[in-house]
Amino acid sequence: MERCDVAVIGTGPAGASAAITAKLRGKIVTLFGSASMSEKMTRAHLIQNYPGLPSVSGAELARALAEHLKSMDIPITEKKVNAVYAMDGYFALQCGEEFIEARSVIIAAGVMREKPLPGENELLGSGVSHCATCDASLYRGKNVAVIGYDPGEEAEAAFLSEVCAHVTYIPAYKDDTRLPERVGVVREKPEEIGKDEDGVFVKTDKGTYRASGIFVLRESVAPSQLVPGIETAGNHINVNRKMETNIPGVFACGDVTGTPYQYIKAAGEGNVAALSAVAYLDKNA
Amino acid sequence: MERCDVAVIGTGPAGASAAITAKLRGKIVTLFGSASMSEKMTRAHLIQNYPGLPSVSGAELARALAEHLKSMDIPITEKKVNAVYAMDGYFALQCGEEFIEARSVIIAAGVMREKPLPGENELLGSGVSHCATCDASLYRGKNVAVIGYDPGEEAEAAFLSEVCAHVTYIPAYKDDTRLPERVGVVREKPEEIGKDEDGVFVKTDKGTYRASGIFVLRESVAPSQLVPGIETAGNHINVNRKMETNIPGVFACGDVTGTPYQYIKAAGEGNVAALSAVAYLDKNA
Repeated sequence: MERCDVAVIGTGPAGASAAITAKLRGKIVTLFGSASMSEKMTRAHLIQNYPGLPSVSGAELARALAEHLKSMDIPITEKKVNAVYAMDGYFALQCGEEFIEARSVIIAAGVMREKPLPGENELLGSGVSHCATCDASLYRGKNVAVIGYDPGEEAEAAFLSEVCAHVTYIPAYKDDTRLPERVGVVREKPEEIGKDEDGVFVKTDKGTYRASGIFVLRESVAPSQLVPGIETAGNHINVNRKMETNIPGVFACGDVTGTPYQYIKAAGEGNVAALSAVAYLDKNA
Repeated sequence: MERCDVAVIGTGPAGASAAITAKLRGKIVTLFGSASMSEKMTRAHLIQNYPGLPSVSGAELARALAEHLKSMDIPITEKKVNAVYAMDGYFALQCGEEFIEARSVIIAAGVMREKPLPGENELLGSGVSHCATCDASLYRGKNVAVIGYDPGEEAEAAFLSEVCAHVTYIPAYKDDTRLPERVGVVREKPEEIGKDEDGVFVKTDKGTYRASGIFVLRESVAPSQLVPGIETAGNHINVNRKMETNIPGVFACGDVTGTPYQYIKAAGEGNVAALSAVAYLDKNA
């Protein structure tokens, strides 16, 4: 795969805005995200303060952004980026088992609003995983539990069910699930992840579920996991007014840079991040 | 006049965005600007990177913002704010001879792109003025020269012609002028303002024009003139990521805070400035 100029991670308003401006400035852009744009956005009932689009639903705004991208021939690469590694003069983006190269990276991946479950971060990498594509092969023929924070994660659970002996899916949302019959759905509230001599388990408000591996899947992950070495304050990436992070060539925009969590703020920051990435590329051409 | 919660100065995308969000948060907003929104914006041919509105003209974006304001019952107060003074717990906005009070202020007045003319700043207040409404009475029955940087200033020149003996109008733009016949239009390039024992004069590329007073009128003025005491870097107001200035209760957004000069960046910053003003008001309620 050709090395792109700008990899944009995230298809909310920040990522869409960044991709639009970077492409307008003549850069080769790879935009990672979902064709449905952003789960959070599409669930917003009414957005009244995106200037120029009075009173739109989240779904309408998502559609407007998708159409804007389409009108500019910016496709969406529907791969989940699990990690961004700084290499010598470029970046390697890990998407499952594949690596994609980029000369600069814009993180517009949104913010993890929920607190991690007790035990989740502590057991990450020793029984707990945030990435189905990356770690499915570790649990081939075994039983796993999946805690999904939005319906978009059901596809991951379905994929795991093709590889693993059995998948228990615990949705942390209220929507009906659409899953293959072989996936067992448990409508309980996950409260804790633990480990003892028999292995890992999920505790819910009603019971305990043991498995060889537990996948906790959210739309957004902690930025420190996504970009090793990035400077953060809690769940937010530290940026200056140019949307530069502490890593030259890596920029961030939108909710991941901090409050207020607002669509128009995110779109504005995406524009600034893109122009800063363009300046970085031109300087390091 | 009732003291408003938030005075927003400027009707470009930054000011419109700030007014929309402040009103949504239940604050009493006074929005100062022009019904035609922003002269600069309406002159933009094609804007391709305002996410959600692919390929709009500046005039179309201006119309979309105006309609958004209208849909939210936010009127535009067509007065020019000449200065903002910090009082004891509130701000006094000077509009010509009138003073309007506000509990907080958002500066979204755009940036002065042209350099001041040689002599302009030096002679400000001693023969040179930036404000027709404020200073017209000083030149009652006398001759004045007006250098206008955009067609919006023609109304000011027409007003001066009602008060002064004669007005010489020097447009620093190419559009046809629409002025009363009694105003003399000089199609020359203003190059310098000077003063000698006979008074002030404008030098153009073709001649010298003497007058009792010279008005230099632009859409945007230097922020240090608009808000005495505000911390600036050149023509830009210094802000942090919350769009706070060095003066508590005064916020800034859009081009006046620095590059990039982009519509969506301005709209995003307007949103942040409004939410910071709301937080300031709630804290100082």
